[in-house]
Amino acid sequence: MDQIFDARPFRPPACAMVGVLYVLSLAASVALATSRGDSVLALPGSESWISAKAKRDADAIIKEAFSSSTVYDRLAYITDTFGPRLSGSSALESALDWAKDQAQKDGLKVYEEEVKIPSWVRGREYASLLSPRTKNIRIIGLGGSISTPDGKPLVAKALVVNSFDELEKINHQAEGRIVVFNPDFVDYDTTVPYRAFAASTAEKYGAVAVLVRSISPYGLQTVHAGVMNDAGIPAAAITLEDAKMFERMQNRNQDIVIELYMEAHTLPDRLSRNVIIEMEGCEKPQELVVFGGHMDSWDNADGAMDDGGGAFISWEVIRLLKVLGLKPKRTLRAILFVNEENGSKGAISYANKHQHEANLTSLAIESDAGTFTPYGISVTSSKKARAILTHIGQRLLSGIGSGNVSGTEYGEDVSYLADQGVPAGSLQVLDPRYGDYANNPCRAFGDGVSGETDPMKSAYFWYHHTEADTIDKLDPEQLQHCAATMAIWTYTVANLDSLLPR
Amino acid sequence: MDQIFDARPFRPPACAMVGVLYVLSLAASVALATSRGDSVLALPGSESWISAKAKRDADAIIKEAFSSSTVYDRLAYITDTFGPRLSGSSALESALDWAKDQAQKDGLKVYEEEVKIPSWVRGREYASLLSPRTKNIRIIGLGGSISTPDGKPLVAKALVVNSFDELEKINHQAEGRIVVFNPDFVDYDTTVPYRAFAASTAEKYGAVAVLVRSISPYGLQTVHAGVMNDAGIPAAAITLEDAKMFERMQNRNQDIVIELYMEAHTLPDRLSRNVIIEMEGCEKPQELVVFGGHMDSWDNADGAMDDGGGAFISWEVIRLLKVLGLKPKRTLRAILFVNEENGSKGAISYANKHQHEANLTSLAIESDAGTFTPYGISVTSSKKARAILTHIGQRLLSGIGSGNVSGTEYGEDVSYLADQGVPAGSLQVLDPRYGDYANNPCRAFGDGVSGETDPMKSAYFWYHHTEADTIDKLDPEQLQHCAATMAIWTYTVANLDSLLPR
Repeated sequence: MDQIFDARPFRPPACAMVGVLYVLSLAASVALATSRGDSVLALPGSESWISAKAKRDADAIIKEAFSSSTVYDRLAYITDTFGPRLSGSSALESALDWAKDQAQKDGLKVYEEEVKIPSWVRGREYASLLSPRTKNIRIIGLGGSISTPDGKPLVAKALVVNSFDELEKINHQAEGRIVVFNPDFVDYDTTVPYRAFAASTAEKYGAVAVLVRSISPYGLQTVHAGVMNDAGIPAAAITLEDAKMFERMQNRNQDIVIELYMEAHTLPDRLSRNVIIEMEGCEKPQELVVFGGHMDSWDNADGAMDDGGGAFISWEVIRLLKVLGLKPKRTLRAILFVNEENGSKGAISYANKHQHEANLTSLAIESDAGTFTPYGISVTSSKKARAILTHIGQRLLSGIGSGNVSGTEYGEDVSYLADQGVPAGSLQVLDPRYGDYANNPCRAFGDGVSGETDPMKSAYFWYHHTEADTIDKLDPEQLQHCAATMAIWTYTVANLDSLLPR
Repeated sequence: MDQIFDARPFRPPACAMVGVLYVLSLAASVALATSRGDSVLALPGSESWISAKAKRDADAIIKEAFSSSTVYDRLAYITDTFGPRLSGSSALESALDWAKDQAQKDGLKVYEEEVKIPSWVRGREYASLLSPRTKNIRIIGLGGSISTPDGKPLVAKALVVNSFDELEKINHQAEGRIVVFNPDFVDYDTTVPYRAFAASTAEKYGAVAVLVRSISPYGLQTVHAGVMNDAGIPAAAITLEDAKMFERMQNRNQDIVIELYMEAHTLPDRLSRNVIIEMEGCEKPQELVVFGGHMDSWDNADGAMDDGGGAFISWEVIRLLKVLGLKPKRTLRAILFVNEENGSKGAISYANKHQHEANLTSLAIESDAGTFTPYGISVTSSKKARAILTHIGQRLLSGIGSGNVSGTEYGEDVSYLADQGVPAGSLQVLDPRYGDYANNPCRAFGDGVSGETDPMKSAYFWYHHTEADTIDKLDPEQLQHCAATMAIWTYTVANLDSLLPR
């Protein structure tokens, strides 16, 4: 893999605006670090290959980003104006149109790539508890669910289980029941399979519908939407409060009778598009650094956090470089993906269409886990690439706290590029209320109120897929901080002498 | 005031179960303390007038209280079974019936006192944003509001203001408008006047309705109910999120057009009752210590926190003493008040009916600020009474952390007794997430997410008057802890040689 390193110490500048050398003696220092295995932090400080120009550019990006509230202002405008942006909705298309037009007004290169996306429609829906007392039950049908049969309300007794294992043990009781899944929230990845597989699992045992406790550590009678796997019975999320109430009622041997009505159905696929905002590389335009977020949201959510923030900080990267007159060696491509929530067709379409560029793509980063205070990137890559990124973070981003390289996770929208071998990553953020801050809604609450479970890094999953995912949960400064962070990582990688080593 | 102290050192026991002397040399030690002004904490430890029997009783109460989850189990049962308990509803009456029956099954003396209460009915209600985009706006009509005129939806432009002062400045713009009040939450007492007076204030300037940002530091698209003062225009609470959105829209010079529909109306008063659970004093039965909480809740709220917890820990006090065979010298009276939320008719009725007992009532305590971990009582009283209470707290309750006497606040339901000169107080609680705990939703969030404002003592106002005020927000152990605390304060005061000094 050494061939990817260009160790010429004084290669003349190739791009008009890149007036001085960007990286120096890269191979030597990285080789030193990676020969120690994982101890990439051991790069000796005196041997940095980061140039003074790179440092000046990074500082300029930070200064420019911090001087405005562009991301917040634009995101507030689209969330207030268009509202939720589910795939297939006119709101999504209007928001994409607006972003495209506005990016053009920024003087940026913008283009679209057609994507065929699903169009699932919720229709009307409700649930009522009929016994042991009458009560409206707040629900949100899960994405991809079918309607209740024959367009009619369905009335059945409930069976409450806390886990798939528990259902297996008493599966003979599920016939004809609405199975209520009441799993404790552990973390998103651990608990979300209940949303995905509750219906198809319960269906096997003759259940007529499922209601799944919202996949969240906390709520205030909050329902959390989300996609489910195909099943022949309808499925909806309920609140934490109601799921626990059903469990108490069952523990009292009370018959729980629920009426459920859902009109959910799937329309024919529609045409939409990924909107791509690009800054062409001045030296190696055919080589790429790609990054982005997704523009679609659930139909109950303004999608400020998930994932307007991720999409708009990516756009802001290109705008900042343009304003500063900075030109990367390689092409930077900010992608506003569509249909991340229920199909990933935007990500799949991009990966398929650009398969020939996989070997030319140095890095793919997504922001889709909130846009609180950034602390770095998670990345899956070779050790050598990790060493390079770690050095960039230490030299250019530690001043604003977002220079850490940790973890190996990447988001859904870059996962298809990762499958093609592209080093892939995600922006990592910390809720500023995390840690020692007293004002911290960031721990998993578990079932109690004593807060003894492990902390999470942000309140992201309080808002995720809910109508509380609104712009007021975001902070203008934090958004600009995220944009500066994304800009420095991507611009610096785009200016390396070589692609990141696979 | 010295005559109230009975300093006889070895008065023989008067009640069958009070086998040893309860208090010793009271006057001497208290006089010592109060002669130093407010420094009641300076009571010398070696001169306690708390008897060994009092300490044994307190320890027995704590042990018995901690051995069960009675309050939680009962409260979960009534909230799950009857749901919200607004004054005038059959749910309230059913819950009162159940509590009365169950307390009788506990072997306790229970009786009712009739109270005429208002019956305000919400009916159907909705609001929609028509421009600049269409969106359902979650509302909850304020208690006492009238309907929209002629039983029809009302459509008008909105005018957003952040304060009464701002409305005064631009009051000429209010004519024909729906005035949206968007005040920052400071603390409940500071901010709740917006709920109370928004409609009557805006009405003066020709507004056709008001929408008031929910009086809460935080929400997840949560609407908070509450009572308002009489006005000739309809009024409803909206979420923090929507109030802030309207402000952003106005700042963009967008016309905000809202459709509002409310059927709210007031029916004739109904008969209800305070339910009183009593343990007669064995020595001075005509003298009293009263305490309680309220049984009514808003019609959107199960009322677990506000105030089922307060009512049921009061009932639990009497149950605990009965189980332990402890008999107070004076009568203990646990009152399950009705109609605290929108009329205080239960409190007023009790105070009027028992006016002749005001001079015989040693202390009146309410629990209506949450039933998290108790840390003591707030009390308005003479310095001498405060010194006595402080000594009780130090000697009997400091072991479980709830022996502090702080503040001078008391709750609504004991305020009419306070007006009659009765020393009055409130149970004080701390959310265990308060302070150093990282899992802390207890700070006022203000407008941002950075949590820089002063801490509150609990998440009470996250749940208060909302559909999220459900039993799962309470903790069985904390409830028993509250019950033990209330029991020791009231039982010990009931056993003093004299009434608390006025």
